[in-house]
Amino acid sequence: MNAQEVFDIIRRDAIEIYSEDDFYKKLKSGKKLTVKLGADPSRPDLHLGHSVVLRKLRFLQEAGHDIVFIIGDFTGMIGDPSGKSKTRVPLTFEQVRQNGKSYFDQVTKILEPEKTKIVYNSEWLGKMSFDDVLSLCGKTTVARILERDDFAGRYAKNQSIGLHEMLYPLMQAYDSVAVSSDIEVGGSDQTFNLLMGRNIQKDYGQEPQAVLTFPLLPGLDGVEKMSKSLDNYIGIDEPPEVMFEKCMRVPDTLLGDYFRLTSDIPPQKFEQIMQEDIRRAHFVYAKAIVTLYHGAEAAAQGEARYNAVAAGGTPQKPSEAVLPKGDYPLWKLVSDSGLAVSGSEARRLIKEGGLLMDNVRQNDPNLTVCASEPILLRRGKAKFLKLMFE
Amino acid sequence: MNAQEVFDIIRRDAIEIYSEDDFYKKLKSGKKLTVKLGADPSRPDLHLGHSVVLRKLRFLQEAGHDIVFIIGDFTGMIGDPSGKSKTRVPLTFEQVRQNGKSYFDQVTKILEPEKTKIVYNSEWLGKMSFDDVLSLCGKTTVARILERDDFAGRYAKNQSIGLHEMLYPLMQAYDSVAVSSDIEVGGSDQTFNLLMGRNIQKDYGQEPQAVLTFPLLPGLDGVEKMSKSLDNYIGIDEPPEVMFEKCMRVPDTLLGDYFRLTSDIPPQKFEQIMQEDIRRAHFVYAKAIVTLYHGAEAAAQGEARYNAVAAGGTPQKPSEAVLPKGDYPLWKLVSDSGLAVSGSEARRLIKEGGLLMDNVRQNDPNLTVCASEPILLRRGKAKFLKLMFE
Repeated sequence: MNAQEVFDIIRRDAIEIYSEDDFYKKLKSGKKLTVKLGADPSRPDLHLGHSVVLRKLRFLQEAGHDIVFIIGDFTGMIGDPSGKSKTRVPLTFEQVRQNGKSYFDQVTKILEPEKTKIVYNSEWLGKMSFDDVLSLCGKTTVARILERDDFAGRYAKNQSIGLHEMLYPLMQAYDSVAVSSDIEVGGSDQTFNLLMGRNIQKDYGQEPQAVLTFPLLPGLDGVEKMSKSLDNYIGIDEPPEVMFEKCMRVPDTLLGDYFRLTSDIPPQKFEQIMQEDIRRAHFVYAKAIVTLYHGAEAAAQGEARYNAVAAGGTPQKPSEAVLPKGDYPLWKLVSDSGLAVSGSEARRLIKEGGLLMDNVRQNDPNLTVCASEPILLRRGKAKFLKLMFE
Repeated sequence: MNAQEVFDIIRRDAIEIYSEDDFYKKLKSGKKLTVKLGADPSRPDLHLGHSVVLRKLRFLQEAGHDIVFIIGDFTGMIGDPSGKSKTRVPLTFEQVRQNGKSYFDQVTKILEPEKTKIVYNSEWLGKMSFDDVLSLCGKTTVARILERDDFAGRYAKNQSIGLHEMLYPLMQAYDSVAVSSDIEVGGSDQTFNLLMGRNIQKDYGQEPQAVLTFPLLPGLDGVEKMSKSLDNYIGIDEPPEVMFEKCMRVPDTLLGDYFRLTSDIPPQKFEQIMQEDIRRAHFVYAKAIVTLYHGAEAAAQGEARYNAVAAGGTPQKPSEAVLPKGDYPLWKLVSDSGLAVSGSEARRLIKEGGLLMDNVRQNDPNLTVCASEPILLRRGKAKFLKLMFE
């Protein structure tokens, strides 16, 4: 693949390129380029939304370039300096490194490991003095930072913005300097931060990175962008049968986007299938995605199980969990089993009629369950869990 | 003097006290208090405007408390991080220490040296890491900092505010933590910064300092506050005859303020003199001030000289300067002699008819002067300089 071909394909798929000239020249230089992607330091659970950009990185790897992931552990290890957020607990050094390793394991489902590097920004930000910070801050203005969408909105609404928050975009930008990034990629919602990197590199005497932004994948709800916290995601680490079922739930109107952004199936092909039979198209998509992340055999099993559940039967082999014998309120059984992430989510799930116990829908979260014999819990259509007690 | 008396006098003279309760409790505690005043790291030229607050500090010293001056050398040694200001050249460590010494020499014209301490904020700010900066920034919000008058005005007018500038009030505030300040004093235009110190101390677990603000002294122009850059000042280090002449130029309407804020003469007395004879009141004021800073003898000489000049004569003993023999354009002679601070100021002075050479007004800055015999230069009414050549 020559530079021109790489350029054409990225130009076709990217939302924006800053600037096309810069990007073209870098590709043409014949140099092995450093492609930067910023990563969150908290425990990663990558989903198909992330895969959109990761697949482009894979493409750039195939064109001969190196990927560097920057784990933003510097702020992660500080937590919330204002002390207002109780959820932003500071991470320890060990947690950060462990999360980094897990991140590497997940991204190398898509990327070539030998061309993928993980670095931690505490390595350089942690060494900066107050002088260095002032000098970094001197490169930009308050108005410029307040332009960022979320700041602008909060400022206009008189919502409080901690002064420390103004420094975050600058740190991310300085990361580009630290790794001498040639290209930075990200979702289109990251444009502001990525361009800041470009400017700060100039200020530090570096050639500015080219910035490539790619579309955001809408979530399964068809409204918000895919995100773990909104529970509208398909995780790339999820079990094949869960993944399959979720793929079948992609809204019809979005199936084309999902095909285009997350699968290898060419547009001519998936468009034709979608026109002929939208339900069959869902199966094709689900099989393609599960095959991509778990292989063909798992995909076949996922399909079989999906059909069995759809036909109203119990799947052949539900997940299993073991709990101590005893009396439980139903909501506690559900949260202890891991079928819900918290007691309050379990209560809500039950109240909304989303839980079946031994094939009977239960609506009372406080129902007492005297647990000793195995129980089959079912959440929604496809999540089965066999509970055993000892 | 007991705590109650100190409190009453400060309450009479201060513009604001934050809070009166805190201040009263601190005085009543019987503890020797640390009174903070922030100082500029550039070469100091203290004037009567500064003396307003310094005289209050002297009063607090007499009541048994210690004064700590914080020289803001940390930012002074950095210069302008944005690189936009060509005038804010970074100071060296040696310059800062020298300026600090000169500062000490000047303030001890008013203060007791043994109860006066000078410290440099680079000692603590220079040791702060990026973590520490974030944690400091986390104590406040963007909106809070933008409330400061000058920021609010600039932001509203879309004038650019460097992000580093937002950190300056925080540094000054952190200085209060570093010296465990009990009281901070300042001009009424400093209220925002002083209160920020109060808040930040609370955040760092200290008892918040009491803040006392005092009136700003209007300059000789009767419009702006007294300031060196506006050339409307009476410097406390100026020669007696210059000081005397400037005191005579205080606008009639402001003479009461000058008496009250900068002299030891009680109100009943100066008010009576002003009512009887405003010109005599000026003489009384000028003599009082020159006596304060140069002693009674110098004051008498200053008065004699003033009368001589006013009568059109040459003063008996002008200042002297020595320059190398040679040909000079007139403007260069004036600037080399120190009678003007720069070539362009010298040119302007001459063009505007402000310069007499050997009692003849000269209007051509480029007039060639073949200098070998002594020359008497006169700037304005009262500034005489005898130039000699060798």
